[in-house]
Amino acid sequence: MRRVGIIGVGQSVFGVRGDVTIQELAWEAVGEALEDAGLTQRDIDISIVGSAGTRTYELYPAVPVNEYSGFSEKGPLRVEAACATGSAALAVAYNMVASGFVNIALAIGVEKMNEVDTATSLAVGGRGGNYLWEYHFYGTTFPAYYALYATAHMANFGTTEEQLALVRVKNQKYAARNPKAQFQFEVTVEDVLKSRPVAWPLKLYDCSAITDGAAAAIVASEDAIKKLHIDIPVWIEAIGYASDTSNITRREDYVSLKATKIAAQMAYKKAGIEPRDVEVAEVHDCFTIAEIMAYEDLGFVEKGKGGKFIEEEQSDIGGKVAVNLSGGLLGKGHPLGATGLAMIYELVKQLREERERGRQAPLKRYIALAHNIGGTGHYGYVTILRR
Amino acid sequence: MRRVGIIGVGQSVFGVRGDVTIQELAWEAVGEALEDAGLTQRDIDISIVGSAGTRTYELYPAVPVNEYSGFSEKGPLRVEAACATGSAALAVAYNMVASGFVNIALAIGVEKMNEVDTATSLAVGGRGGNYLWEYHFYGTTFPAYYALYATAHMANFGTTEEQLALVRVKNQKYAARNPKAQFQFEVTVEDVLKSRPVAWPLKLYDCSAITDGAAAAIVASEDAIKKLHIDIPVWIEAIGYASDTSNITRREDYVSLKATKIAAQMAYKKAGIEPRDVEVAEVHDCFTIAEIMAYEDLGFVEKGKGGKFIEEEQSDIGGKVAVNLSGGLLGKGHPLGATGLAMIYELVKQLREERERGRQAPLKRYIALAHNIGGTGHYGYVTILRR
Repeated sequence: MRRVGIIGVGQSVFGVRGDVTIQELAWEAVGEALEDAGLTQRDIDISIVGSAGTRTYELYPAVPVNEYSGFSEKGPLRVEAACATGSAALAVAYNMVASGFVNIALAIGVEKMNEVDTATSLAVGGRGGNYLWEYHFYGTTFPAYYALYATAHMANFGTTEEQLALVRVKNQKYAARNPKAQFQFEVTVEDVLKSRPVAWPLKLYDCSAITDGAAAAIVASEDAIKKLHIDIPVWIEAIGYASDTSNITRREDYVSLKATKIAAQMAYKKAGIEPRDVEVAEVHDCFTIAEIMAYEDLGFVEKGKGGKFIEEEQSDIGGKVAVNLSGGLLGKGHPLGATGLAMIYELVKQLREERERGRQAPLKRYIALAHNIGGTGHYGYVTILRR
Repeated sequence: MRRVGIIGVGQSVFGVRGDVTIQELAWEAVGEALEDAGLTQRDIDISIVGSAGTRTYELYPAVPVNEYSGFSEKGPLRVEAACATGSAALAVAYNMVASGFVNIALAIGVEKMNEVDTATSLAVGGRGGNYLWEYHFYGTTFPAYYALYATAHMANFGTTEEQLALVRVKNQKYAARNPKAQFQFEVTVEDVLKSRPVAWPLKLYDCSAITDGAAAAIVASEDAIKKLHIDIPVWIEAIGYASDTSNITRREDYVSLKATKIAAQMAYKKAGIEPRDVEVAEVHDCFTIAEIMAYEDLGFVEKGKGGKFIEEEQSDIGGKVAVNLSGGLLGKGHPLGATGLAMIYELVKQLREERERGRQAPLKRYIALAHNIGGTGHYGYVTILRR
């Protein structure tokens, strides 16, 4: 494979963005990425739009997004992988450069989720798995699905509501310092425990929100990077991918996500690294329980010890691996199509050591990991970056 | 780039397929493709699902489709490019093999369009471009859009309603002999001219229908093909891609599709061939006028002479290039996500000389071309195959 590096990243402010159209929202990320790379639209060979869709009035959003950003002739497709859509868009752009099909590709992730009301947005999300046998008969939505995982984890390993709450506390500490986060405030364990129940044991603050946002990354071949005299490219060392059954009733267990485990093993093997080599990570904390399972499924700690891991501050700066210094999906927000690329945005900033004191991970090996899940483990991506 | 060949193809019967779910429909194509290649699910590294979506109750169709076909762990994304979705899925699978990311990839195109009523299906289609400035204000649907092209072509070049009708007559001649076509009967020029008006000058028989269907192709690296001892691989010589403005009011003219011209030039250049080298083609005849514009935009004949080209039988067997021997979108049907891969299905059969007498193109150079458009020229793909 041709070596592929990331040479520019951008991210919009996340939140309820009724002030912009989906095109304008995407441009906030694209414009920043172009400026970051020192490029113009003419330098980009192809633009890959990731958008889960179905919550905005643009049913086929890639066309207007590309037109508005100045890629009218260069945007031949849209990618969707539910909440892992951004990572899937990056994987497609990466392969198009790695193959030699193009030299410089742009991956855009964008989602407007608030053009429908909250109930509709939740219902549309609930259809992310198998419509007929789960959504239609049981009406399950995402908080209910992840509550099943949380109760199983608590029953099997003694994980506590306080440990779940600590995930939100840590992530809000960083979201409070992230000017692009949806929720820029800190919370205490008590705040989380006292927030209103959504699907026990998950309370409001155990859940990520419904977010509008965009993120983008420009990837280039090693030759193109040399020609452009890019100083600090961040290399994509490996992308691991997996998927899983549509019905979660067919899953092997409810204390881990198989898609994470398969994708992680693939990525570690391709990159030739071990979990302990990862210094900074963005993981898919759509719910607090999801971050705890991710510690385990990614191999940062053994299965069942995720609760202890957060309690001992091993996933914070100064611990074994600094996780979700962006604020995560919980603090920063979770606009489906943008999430995977917003993880890349944060990690590129971290690897370049561009974050302010208190939010910058200490780095020796300069190895970062992005972990992005679609649905309730229906899709899994693990991307390893190295500077 | 690593050389990539097609080693197996499959297609479901096209039509109104209320007898199957979207999963079952996809399997009809996938099962045939696996059998054609002599492979099982274990041999496939990754499965890429193309589905335009929004007309079936499965909002995220890739997951159930992959699960049902036996690719639960190997289906990490869905691709969408409106009516060019099948070609976009092939392009992604092709790049994942060409890059060395995987060795054998499956591209599935599937669409269920009849789970909503015809008016809804048309309305959803009309939103394929720019929602706000065209669909919302003018309510334009696809027959109306292509009628604009037809009237412009008639006004500029004297193209006649009879010439448009001849496209349908030719394509039905072949659809009548295609057991997988939606409409297996022949029509006369008079039948077309007398069919009821939809959007003048387009009458019912000038328009493709609303179709359920699936198609699939398995692509592999040259190394994998050698190891598998595949006798007659069909090589993907080149894929050209383009896109265009969301508002058709911003297009340069209404007698051609720029996306076709850009994609064709890219594909011819990469493959090192001229338009006259193409012996058999499947082109995007969503309406009769679209096939006439395609002759011109693909360089088979000069601009404005498309009407004469069909009249002189130059696009039929025995002419300069045999076009749409599958029956085309008009005769075979047009299930958006499947269409591009159904073109590949037909061309692989043609290049292997597996078609019966009267439907087999005579071949000397063994060069074939697939031309797939999304929206009203919003997306364009030109794929060159060679045996």
